[in-house]
Amino acid sequence: MINFQTSPDQYKHWKLSVAGSVATLTMDVQEDVTLAEGYKLKLNSYDLGVDIELADAVLRLRFEHPQVKVVVITSLKPRIFCAGANIYMLGTSSHAFKVNFCKFTNETRCAIEDDSHHSGRRYLAALNGTASGGGYELAIACDEIYLVDDGNSAISLPEVPLLGVLPGTGGLTRLVDKRRVRRDRADVFSTLAEGLKGKRAKEWGLIDDYFPTSRFQESIDARVREIAEEVTQTVSLRTGSEAAGLTDSESSQTNSLRYGIKLNPLQKELKPAGVEYKYVTLVLNREQRYADLTLHGPGPEADLPVTPEDIQKLGDSYWPLQAYRELDDALLHLRVNEAEIGLVCVRTQGNIDDVLAIDKTLEANKDHWLVREILLYMARVLRRFDLTAKSFFAIVEPGSCFAGNLLELLLASDRSYMLNDTEGPQASISVSALNAGSLPMSNGLTRLQSRFLADPEKVEKVLAHNAPLDAEEADQAGLITFVPDELDWEDEIRVAIEERTSLSPDALTGMEASLRFAGPETMDTKIYGRLTAWQNWIFQRPNAVGPEGALTNYGKPTQAHFDFKRT
Amino acid sequence: MINFQTSPDQYKHWKLSVAGSVATLTMDVQEDVTLAEGYKLKLNSYDLGVDIELADAVLRLRFEHPQVKVVVITSLKPRIFCAGANIYMLGTSSHAFKVNFCKFTNETRCAIEDDSHHSGRRYLAALNGTASGGGYELAIACDEIYLVDDGNSAISLPEVPLLGVLPGTGGLTRLVDKRRVRRDRADVFSTLAEGLKGKRAKEWGLIDDYFPTSRFQESIDARVREIAEEVTQTVSLRTGSEAAGLTDSESSQTNSLRYGIKLNPLQKELKPAGVEYKYVTLVLNREQRYADLTLHGPGPEADLPVTPEDIQKLGDSYWPLQAYRELDDALLHLRVNEAEIGLVCVRTQGNIDDVLAIDKTLEANKDHWLVREILLYMARVLRRFDLTAKSFFAIVEPGSCFAGNLLELLLASDRSYMLNDTEGPQASISVSALNAGSLPMSNGLTRLQSRFLADPEKVEKVLAHNAPLDAEEADQAGLITFVPDELDWEDEIRVAIEERTSLSPDALTGMEASLRFAGPETMDTKIYGRLTAWQNWIFQRPNAVGPEGALTNYGKPTQAHFDFKRT
Repeated sequence: MINFQTSPDQYKHWKLSVAGSVATLTMDVQEDVTLAEGYKLKLNSYDLGVDIELADAVLRLRFEHPQVKVVVITSLKPRIFCAGANIYMLGTSSHAFKVNFCKFTNETRCAIEDDSHHSGRRYLAALNGTASGGGYELAIACDEIYLVDDGNSAISLPEVPLLGVLPGTGGLTRLVDKRRVRRDRADVFSTLAEGLKGKRAKEWGLIDDYFPTSRFQESIDARVREIAEEVTQTVSLRTGSEAAGLTDSESSQTNSLRYGIKLNPLQKELKPAGVEYKYVTLVLNREQRYADLTLHGPGPEADLPVTPEDIQKLGDSYWPLQAYRELDDALLHLRVNEAEIGLVCVRTQGNIDDVLAIDKTLEANKDHWLVREILLYMARVLRRFDLTAKSFFAIVEPGSCFAGNLLELLLASDRSYMLNDTEGPQASISVSALNAGSLPMSNGLTRLQSRFLADPEKVEKVLAHNAPLDAEEADQAGLITFVPDELDWEDEIRVAIEERTSLSPDALTGMEASLRFAGPETMDTKIYGRLTAWQNWIFQRPNAVGPEGALTNYGKPTQAHFDFKRT
Repeated sequence: MINFQTSPDQYKHWKLSVAGSVATLTMDVQEDVTLAEGYKLKLNSYDLGVDIELADAVLRLRFEHPQVKVVVITSLKPRIFCAGANIYMLGTSSHAFKVNFCKFTNETRCAIEDDSHHSGRRYLAALNGTASGGGYELAIACDEIYLVDDGNSAISLPEVPLLGVLPGTGGLTRLVDKRRVRRDRADVFSTLAEGLKGKRAKEWGLIDDYFPTSRFQESIDARVREIAEEVTQTVSLRTGSEAAGLTDSESSQTNSLRYGIKLNPLQKELKPAGVEYKYVTLVLNREQRYADLTLHGPGPEADLPVTPEDIQKLGDSYWPLQAYRELDDALLHLRVNEAEIGLVCVRTQGNIDDVLAIDKTLEANKDHWLVREILLYMARVLRRFDLTAKSFFAIVEPGSCFAGNLLELLLASDRSYMLNDTEGPQASISVSALNAGSLPMSNGLTRLQSRFLADPEKVEKVLAHNAPLDAEEADQAGLITFVPDELDWEDEIRVAIEERTSLSPDALTGMEASLRFAGPETMDTKIYGRLTAWQNWIFQRPNAVGPEGALTNYGKPTQAHFDFKRT
């Protein structure tokens, strides 16, 4: 079982240090600390365990060290920045694991860009040695890339020429779409096993600059100081009175939390048939290959603070943060540890008014750094949901609380069922201001906009509802797929589950990836749609993973042999 | 060997009839006339041979019957419109063939939409019976869809529930992006083997209307008349004086060509090592797995008419039309009949001034229907080039004529080499007005815009050049990848070819699909990038094509068994 929870004091491969407004994330991968048997993590190559730490560090920076303005990513190893995903790990992994590994590492890199884009923190890749494959892909997820000019260090994407696979962590897309490298140069670079050194790499736009070894550190430091000054104006962490008396030169430690809030370990109980968190319950029906995932709204005992100060006092026990951290963990658990679960029935339990009260507070204070980070985090978790290769059915019954932020779960689901009880208590759903833009999908649209592409006016109409909608009203508004009455309800849900779980899991994955992201495309949707789909295809081609494939034979005395038919 | 050339008098599966401004394309597939052994084309199901005829008919409509304003696509078979791609054909085809089959059928549907979008002809799918799978995908490529309401006929996409693959001809993308069907309804429809009948299909936006059997034909006729009147203003075929005396009620036959020009059979000579056309020469170096594809500019004997009237007199022997028809045929030949060729070296031979003269005439008369159709055709052939899964290197030597429209071939290539001879004769390249917008890529950008995403001003700068550029100038302008001198030239090309053809063909396909289409996305790029890549992935999953896969076991007494792990 793979565990996605960690913290800096448990890191094996990264060091996170914070000094005032500058954080340094240093990669120093321990060869022998691997998630599985059969490979060593030489030359700062990585497996999923290394990337789980990176994802954790980037998340903690945002909550625990919000004063940080510049993040330097570098390596402790001499002459090597990072050799990318470990090839022997890839060579010995199942297809499904490779795909999920790439998806997670992609999400981590997108989270770096999300931080840069929305919270104004600048990421600087200080390549003190060679960055190849995933090493360069990590660099290209940063805002700026600097390479040491030591006569030897290079950047490269050797996947195509050496391994017969793609750089699968967004590299190809970011080359032409983010750094907008000319496509013929991108073609040359991506087929050149040895890569490029400083001068040409800069000329082609692959790095921002290069410095000789003797001046490398001072040049990085100078640039960091420049950036720290540049971003002063764009990141407003606190109101004037709060910031009084705090200076950036003071060093901040993970546990001192002078500025931020602490992310404590999630309390979760692993059971034979599921996982129990405080606000999230996952029940696995393994034989029928579906799961019930229930989100509990803020319980009667939960605090519902209305000011940022009180939210900050609550810290990570504040419902939106805790519930979404638990949801995130449950989604990752489902992806990696429960491959045979093909369908997730999404349910909620709680009080709609309490959920709406939370949303009201978040919306009213969204310019406060902590509220902003909480909203951005909720948006990322919901995107993780969109990108999870499981079918999702939202099930709406009396006592549920699909309101505001939790309504997004319903809108993110592949379809929804709402009980239209003609006699008993009524189920209802509700919109909030958060459905209007704070929780965008990867395609840049809200889930309501994506839903009503054919009729954009419906978005405004739905958002104008200021009272909960019962089944018929929800159906009328176009928010629900099916509204069976109490006589049909149980049968209809049962049959829908049986039908869905009987279908080819591969066809469903491809279908959902196509239907979920209508409308405009972004770099993110290109990475998860186009690039990932091609990589998944290649990841099962005999030319890569067959007995004579390039990935299989890498580093062995045997040679790859290709079937040269072009497809 | 598969031959892509045909004409209405050779059609086995379609009937094309034209009456005034209305054309009817009637599907009546002959079960036993198949491209390969082992399957029968029952229920108007199709194989590549059927789609080659459809593509030919759509092309001929544009050139031979430009007066047509409405195209009705229907079936001669009772109670069945079209059952989609033949499942037994798919089940017995190689992976590479399936992929190329889907690509061609996608291009045919995009050509229908290109006609509708740019030439104003409206396509109407008259579903006089059930349209399932590719049958509905053909309908959804049309502008309007009408279904008979006979208590039985339905539309459906049964690929996911019955075959464990995707509707691979754009169906999923067009559902949510073209008809903008709500994604939960698209999910239900795409997993419902029996599909939907008239009422709900209309309510969900999957069809435009439905009519009872007794009123079906008259309702279609009425709508056709309406459309024919609506589009009067938008399609201007001739100048006033030309149109005088011509009436739409007069029936026009394929061979009478009252309005259009005739597309005569291409003259081509198949040789053991290639194909020879008039303006295109394809030489296959099968052992080294690369081809030389040479386009010859208009020769000294070629007519270079400057008025639309003279162009119309020349008809299909006019250089742009003939050369691009030959290029199109050569590309299809390479794709389907020469799978092991992984690299195509693109060369040109001829006089730059003559090519520029052609472009000048085309640009000056682009509002004339024939010139417009020629330009739109050239654009489609160039997009076929972009979408061909082979590497392309443009090779520029003295005597070549990469100018204007032929410069697009260089810009469409993955990289380019231009001889920078310090002593002998100079090679040169040149831009024309056609590089500024008449030949767009699938992403909606020109190839110059795609190339200079990082620096849009360069596009204008390049277009401002009014004289040919030699190697150093072309390099300076950012138009060329490498400019070796005469000492390095041969070795550099030889090594580049050797290196390219040694790489994994699958990794190259995925890499090129990612690097060629930077910038914005369109429905077309989604179909060829995202949807196709997922389908290709599924097309080699054991759950579809393994011994227990759904595609393999369809229609057999045996049942499919899935590995239910979600990927």
